[in-house]
Amino acid sequence: MSISAFDHPWLGGYFGDPETVAIWSPERQLRHMLAFEAAWSRALGACGLCDAAEAEKAAKAIESAEIAPEALRAGMAADGVPVPALLALLRKSVPDAALHKGATSQDVVDTALAMTLRETTALFLDRLAELDAALQALERTFGDEKLMGRTRMQAAAEIRARERISTWRLPLPDHADRLRALGPRVEKVQIGGAAGDRAALGEKADAMVASVAAQLGLRPTGKAWHAMREGIADYASILSLISGTAGKMGQDAALMAQQGIDEIGLSGGGGSSAMPHKNNPVLAELLVTLARFNAVQVSGLHHALIHEQERSGAAWSLEWMILPQMALATGRSLAAALELCGKVERIGKG
Amino acid sequence: MSISAFDHPWLGGYFGDPETVAIWSPERQLRHMLAFEAAWSRALGACGLCDAAEAEKAAKAIESAEIAPEALRAGMAADGVPVPALLALLRKSVPDAALHKGATSQDVVDTALAMTLRETTALFLDRLAELDAALQALERTFGDEKLMGRTRMQAAAEIRARERISTWRLPLPDHADRLRALGPRVEKVQIGGAAGDRAALGEKADAMVASVAAQLGLRPTGKAWHAMREGIADYASILSLISGTAGKMGQDAALMAQQGIDEIGLSGGGGSSAMPHKNNPVLAELLVTLARFNAVQVSGLHHALIHEQERSGAAWSLEWMILPQMALATGRSLAAALELCGKVERIGKG
Amino acid sequence: MSISAFDHPWLGGYFGDPETVAIWSPERQLRHMLAFEAAWSRALGACGLCDAAEAEKAAKAIESAEIAPEALRAGMAADGVPVPALLALLRKSVPDAALHKGATSQDVVDTALAMTLRETTALFLDRLAELDAALQALERTFGDEKLMGRTRMQAAAEIRARERISTWRLPLPDHADRLRALGPRVEKVQIGGAAGDRAALGEKADAMVASVAAQLGLRPTGKAWHAMREGIADYASILSLISGTAGKMGQDAALMAQQGIDEIGLSGGGGSSAMPHKNNPVLAELLVTLARFNAVQVSGLHHALIHEQERSGAAWSLEWMILPQMALATGRSLAAALELCGKVERIGKG
Amino acid sequence: MSISAFDHPWLGGYFGDPETVAIWSPERQLRHMLAFEAAWSRALGACGLCDAAEAEKAAKAIESAEIAPEALRAGMAADGVPVPALLALLRKSVPDAALHKGATSQDVVDTALAMTLRETTALFLDRLAELDAALQALERTFGDEKLMGRTRMQAAAEIRARERISTWRLPLPDHADRLRALGPRVEKVQIGGAAGDRAALGEKADAMVASVAAQLGLRPTGKAWHAMREGIADYASILSLISGTAGKMGQDAALMAQQGIDEIGLSGGGGSSAMPHKNNPVLAELLVTLARFNAVQVSGLHHALIHEQERSGAAWSLEWMILPQMALATGRSLAAALELCGKVERIGKG
Repeated sequence: MSISAFDHPWLGGYFGDPETVAIWSPERQLRHMLAFEAAWSRALGACGLCDAAEAEKAAKAIESAEIAPEALRAGMAADGVPVPALLALLRKSVPDAALHKGATSQDVVDTALAMTLRETTALFLDRLAELDAALQALERTFGDEKLMGRTRMQAAAEIRARERISTWRLPLPDHADRLRALGPRVEKVQIGGAAGDRAALGEKADAMVASVAAQLGLRPTGKAWHAMREGIADYASILSLISGTAGKMGQDAALMAQQGIDEIGLSGGGGSSAMPHKNNPVLAELLVTLARFNAVQVSGLHHALIHEQERSGAAWSLEWMILPQMALATGRSLAAALELCGKVERIGKG
Repeated sequence: MSISAFDHPWLGGYFGDPETVAIWSPERQLRHMLAFEAAWSRALGACGLCDAAEAEKAAKAIESAEIAPEALRAGMAADGVPVPALLALLRKSVPDAALHKGATSQDVVDTALAMTLRETTALFLDRLAELDAALQALERTFGDEKLMGRTRMQAAAEIRARERISTWRLPLPDHADRLRALGPRVEKVQIGGAAGDRAALGEKADAMVASVAAQLGLRPTGKAWHAMREGIADYASILSLISGTAGKMGQDAALMAQQGIDEIGLSGGGGSSAMPHKNNPVLAELLVTLARFNAVQVSGLHHALIHEQERSGAAWSLEWMILPQMALATGRSLAAALELCGKVERIGKG
Repeated sequence: MSISAFDHPWLGGYFGDPETVAIWSPERQLRHMLAFEAAWSRALGACGLCDAAEAEKAAKAIESAEIAPEALRAGMAADGVPVPALLALLRKSVPDAALHKGATSQDVVDTALAMTLRETTALFLDRLAELDAALQALERTFGDEKLMGRTRMQAAAEIRARERISTWRLPLPDHADRLRALGPRVEKVQIGGAAGDRAALGEKADAMVASVAAQLGLRPTGKAWHAMREGIADYASILSLISGTAGKMGQDAALMAQQGIDEIGLSGGGGSSAMPHKNNPVLAELLVTLARFNAVQVSGLHHALIHEQERSGAAWSLEWMILPQMALATGRSLAAALELCGKVERIGKG
Repeated sequence: MSISAFDHPWLGGYFGDPETVAIWSPERQLRHMLAFEAAWSRALGACGLCDAAEAEKAAKAIESAEIAPEALRAGMAADGVPVPALLALLRKSVPDAALHKGATSQDVVDTALAMTLRETTALFLDRLAELDAALQALERTFGDEKLMGRTRMQAAAEIRARERISTWRLPLPDHADRLRALGPRVEKVQIGGAAGDRAALGEKADAMVASVAAQLGLRPTGKAWHAMREGIADYASILSLISGTAGKMGQDAALMAQQGIDEIGLSGGGGSSAMPHKNNPVLAELLVTLARFNAVQVSGLHHALIHEQERSGAAWSLEWMILPQMALATGRSLAAALELCGKVERIGKG
C-alpha cells in the first residue's frame, strides 16, 4: 500500500487522478520497456544485424512475455536500473542474438519515458481544452456579475467577474502551445548504446534509429540524449506552469469563498469532523497545494540537468523520483480545476 | 501498485527502505489515528465529559475496529481529511457520546503524525549510531592509507584516508543531537478542537491534554500547534542535513571509484545491460540522489510554514505530500550508507 | 557597496557579467519607467484624453527629468512600489493632467520589465550563438581525439571527443528557439489601470494600448497580465535551462581536469593561497554553481504564479527578488562558458 | 549601484535592513579577513613558527592595512577566491615569513564568515526578544477581542484574538533556542591549511588553532570543517524558520485587513499611484514575500552539503551566493514584523 499521496489508499482520493496514475503505472512502464525491446529486435532483423525470422520470433516472445513488475525489484536494487533483470527474464524465452544487441539500459528506460510523456501530453491537451471550455462557460454565465477588484488584498475598484475568470483561462491555450511545441523534443527514441555513441551499431546506427522510431511512433534523433536532459526539465517546467495557473484560480476561489467576502458559491465542499455546518473549499485549496508542490519539485529537474559525462546515475535517478510526481500532480490539478468549475453556483455578490 | 520510487514494484528495491516504509505505511497511520481516538474516549471518561464505562467500551471498540484504509478514500476526496469518514465508520460500533467529542480532524491527523515521527526518530538514532560505528571501523582499517587530498577537484597534497573518512562521520553525532533536541518539539499531542482553542473542552481542557498525552506517551502542550508548523519544518531540515552528510560521502565514493583515481575498492556494484564488466557504484550515486532529493523537498516544508489563520488546508496538505517522502529518503540514505560501508574493500591507492 | 555576489566589489569579478548587470541596473530600470510614462503621456494626447500639446510637453519633461534612483527609496519603503514617489517627483515639472492618468504602478513596473527582458533576450541570443560557434570550433579541433566514455562515473568504452562536446552544444539552438518563441509572450506592454480592467480608459483603452505599445516597440495585449505571470515563470525556466546546459559542460570539464583523468588541458586557472602550483578550473566550477543557483531560484518564480486576485503584492515582490538574479547568473554563465572554451588547450589524453 | 533587492537604491528601502546589511557588508567581511590574518601572524609568533617580534609587526601592519574592496576583484575573477589577491597586497608591507604561513584561502574566508554569523546571531536574538515583547503587548491590549476563528479559510467558531496572536509569538523563543544551540557549531575557527589536515603546522597545529580561536573569540575545532558544511545549512534552515514564522503573521495580517473581514486596523500602509484612498498592508505582504524567498533559498544550502573531497569550489561558492541573502531577508523580516506590530491600531471587529 503506497505512502505516496497520489496512490495512498485514502490520500489518493484527494490527490490522485486515476487516468494519469494509469499512464504512469509500473505496469504500463513495463509495457513500454517491452515495446522498446520488441521494436529493437525487429529493427535488428530489418537491418540485418540478426536473422530476420529470429528477430520476429524474439519480438513476439517479448511482446507476449508475462513479467511481474516485482520480478525486477532485486535486479533494480543491485544494478540501479531494471533492465539487466528484465533481460535475464526475457532470455529464458528469447534468443540472445536478437535481444537488446547494441542497446543499453538507458535506451530502454528513456524510450519508455518518451512513450509515457506522449500519452501524458495527449491527456493534458484534452484537459486544457476542457478546462478552457468550462471557464468560458463560467464567463458566459457570470461574466457580467460585479466583483470588488482587489489589489494587494485590498479593495480597489469594482470590476466585472469576467475580468477575474479570464485570468484563470487565458494562460491555458499558451500552455497547450507549449506542450505541443515541446512534443518533438521529448517524444523521441533514446538510442545510444553502451557509451552513448551508437558505436556497437556501426553503419547500421541510422537505420536502427529510424526503424525503432517508426515502430514506436516516436521521432528519430541524430544523437542520443542520454546526457542532454533539457527536454525533461522543460517538460517539468511546463507541468508546473499548468498547475501554477490552476493554483492561482484555486487561491482566488478560496479567497472569494471567505465569509465576509462571499464572492463565490460552491456546492458540496468538504465536511469537518467538528463542525458539520462547514463547507470547506477543499478543491480550491488542493489547487494551491498542487501548484506549490510542483513549484518545489521543478527545481529538482533543473538540478538534474547537471549530468556527468555520458550518463549520470545520480542525476538520472533524481528524475525518476520527481518527474512522475509532477505529472500526477498536474493531472490532478487539471481534473480538480475542472471539478471545481462544476461546483460553481455563483460568482459575484450573493 | 505504486508509482512512487519508494514503494514502486521495482524502483522500490533501490529507493525503498522497508523499515521506514513500515513506519509510514497507511496501515500504521490508521493505527495511530485509532490510538488517538481510543485515548480520547478514555480521556473523556476520565475527565467526566462522558460516562467512564461507556468511554472504556468505546475505546475498546475503537481499538478493535477493523477498518480498511481504502474505506477512507471517498471521504478523503470529499472532505480533504480522512477523519469524518473514519468517524462515520466508527459510529457503527461506538456510541457517539464517547467519540471524538471536542476534538477535530487536525487533532487526530497531527497526533498520529507525532507518533510516526517518534518512531522515525528512534529508528534514525539507531542508524546514525550504526553508521558512525561503521565509519569508525573504516577509519581504523584504512585510516593510515594515503590519498591525494583534492581541493576544487584538483590534486592538492597527500593526506591520510582518515581525514576524508572523518568528514563523513563527524557530523553524525551532531545530527543525533539535533534529532534528540527536536524530539520534545514534535512528539507532542495535537489538541485544539474546532477552532484550535480547545473551547469545547471548557475547564477540562488541560486535563484532557494531560490524559491523552500520558496515554500516548507524547508531550502535553499549552496550546494546539495547528497553525505553528515550525517543528515539522525543522524536522524536515534535519532529515535533509542527514541525507546531505551521506550525500557528501556518496559523492566522494563515486569520485574515488573513478578509473584513473582508484582510491576506493567496492565489492558488488551494479551491473550494466551493455557492459557486463562494469561495476557501477550505484549505492554511492544513490546517496547523492537522495541528498539532492531532500534538498529540493525541504523547501516545500518551509513554504508550508505560511499557514493561514487557525488552520490552512493548503499548507497542511503540502506537508502530507512531502514529509513522508523525506523520511523515506532519509531512511534509505542511512541504510544505503551503511551498506556502502560494508562494501568497502579498499581505501587508498591499490 | 553591494553584498550580492553579482555586484559585490570582489565577488562580482567572479560572478558578475558587466553587460547583463548594465541591462538590469537601477539606472536603466528607471529609464524604462520614465520611457513608459513619456509614452503614456503622448498616448493620452494622441487619444484625446488630454491636450495633445500638453501631452508632448509632459513627455519631454519626463524624458529629460533628472531623478536619482535613491530618491525613490523612501517612497518604495512606504508604498511597496516606487511609482507613487516617482510621480511625486515628476509632478514638480509635469502637468498633472498629462501624467499617468488611468495607469497604475504595476503598468509602469511591468512594462519596464518587459523592456528589460527584451534587451536580455537579445544579449543572450547573441551569446548562445557565440557559444555554439566556440563549441563547434572545439569539435573541429579536438573532435577526433579519444576519450574514455564514462557512464555512472565509470569507464565504459572509448569514444571520440566530439561525442561529449556535442552534448554541451546541441541544446543551445533549442534554447535560442525557446527564447524566441517566448519573446511575444513577455515583450508586451502592461496596461491595466487601478483594478486591471482598463476601466479608467473607457473606450480609448485599445487605442491607448496600441499607442504605448507602438512607441515602446512592445506588443499590445488584449488584457493586462497583472495577475497572469506565466510568461515570467517561463522566462525563468528558460534561463535555468540555459545555465543548466552550461553547468553540465562545467561539471564535465571539472571532472576531465582531474589529475588521473587528464582529459582536458586548460590555460590560466585559478591560483591558491597555499599551493602556488595549482591550476584550479574555477570557470568550470562556476558553471556548476550558477546552474545550481538557477535551479534553486526557478522554484521561486513558479511559486509566484499563485497571484491573488487582480494583483498580489507578495507574489509580485518575490519576482523582483529573484528574476534579476537569474538573469545575471545566466548572463555570467554564458560569458564564463565562452571564456572556458577559450582556455581549452587540449581535449583528449595528453 | 546594486541590482539586489536588499541594497538596490529604491528596492532597498522596502527589502533592506541597514543593520544586517552592515554586518554583511564587503567592508566588514574584509575587516574579518584581515582580523584572521593578523591573529594568524600573532599565533605564528606565539607558537614559535616565526619570530615573535616580526609576528607582532606583521599583525599590526595587517590591521592597519588600507585595502579597497575593489582591489580584490581581479584576483577573485582569476582565482575564484579573494585571498591570493589579498595576500599580494599585504605582502607589500608585511614580511612574508609572518604572513598566512600554513593557512589557506578557505581558512580565511570561512573564519570571517564565522565572525559574521556571530554578529548576525547576536542581532537576531535581540530582535526575536523585541518581537516577542511587541507581540505580548498586542496580546495584552487586544487579546480579549473576538475574532472569527477560520480554518481552511472558512469561518469556524469565534475565538479570542490572543489565540491567533500567540501563534505568531510562541515559536519565537524556540527560534532563539535554536540559534543559541547552533552557535557553538558555527562560531568556530576554520583552520585546515592546503589540504585541510593542518599538515603544514605539524605539531603546532593545536596550539595554532587555540591561539587563533582565543584571539578572535571563536571556538577551536579538532578538525577543519572545510568539507563539513552542516552548520551552515542548519543556520540557513533556522533563518528560514524565523522568516517563516513572521510570514505566517504577515499572511494572517493581510487576510485580516481585507475589506469584508476587517479584523485588523493598520496605520500608514502603502499608497497607490492610481487609488489615493488605498492603505495597502505592504509590510504584511513583505513578510510573506521574505518567507517564501527564504523557503526557496534554503534548498540551495542543503545542496551545498554535497561538497566534493577536501574542498569543493562549486558547492562553497553557492553558499556565497545564497547565505548572505538569507540573512538579509531574515533581518528585514524581523524588522518588518516589529514595525508591523507598531502599526496595529486594532485587532478584532471594528
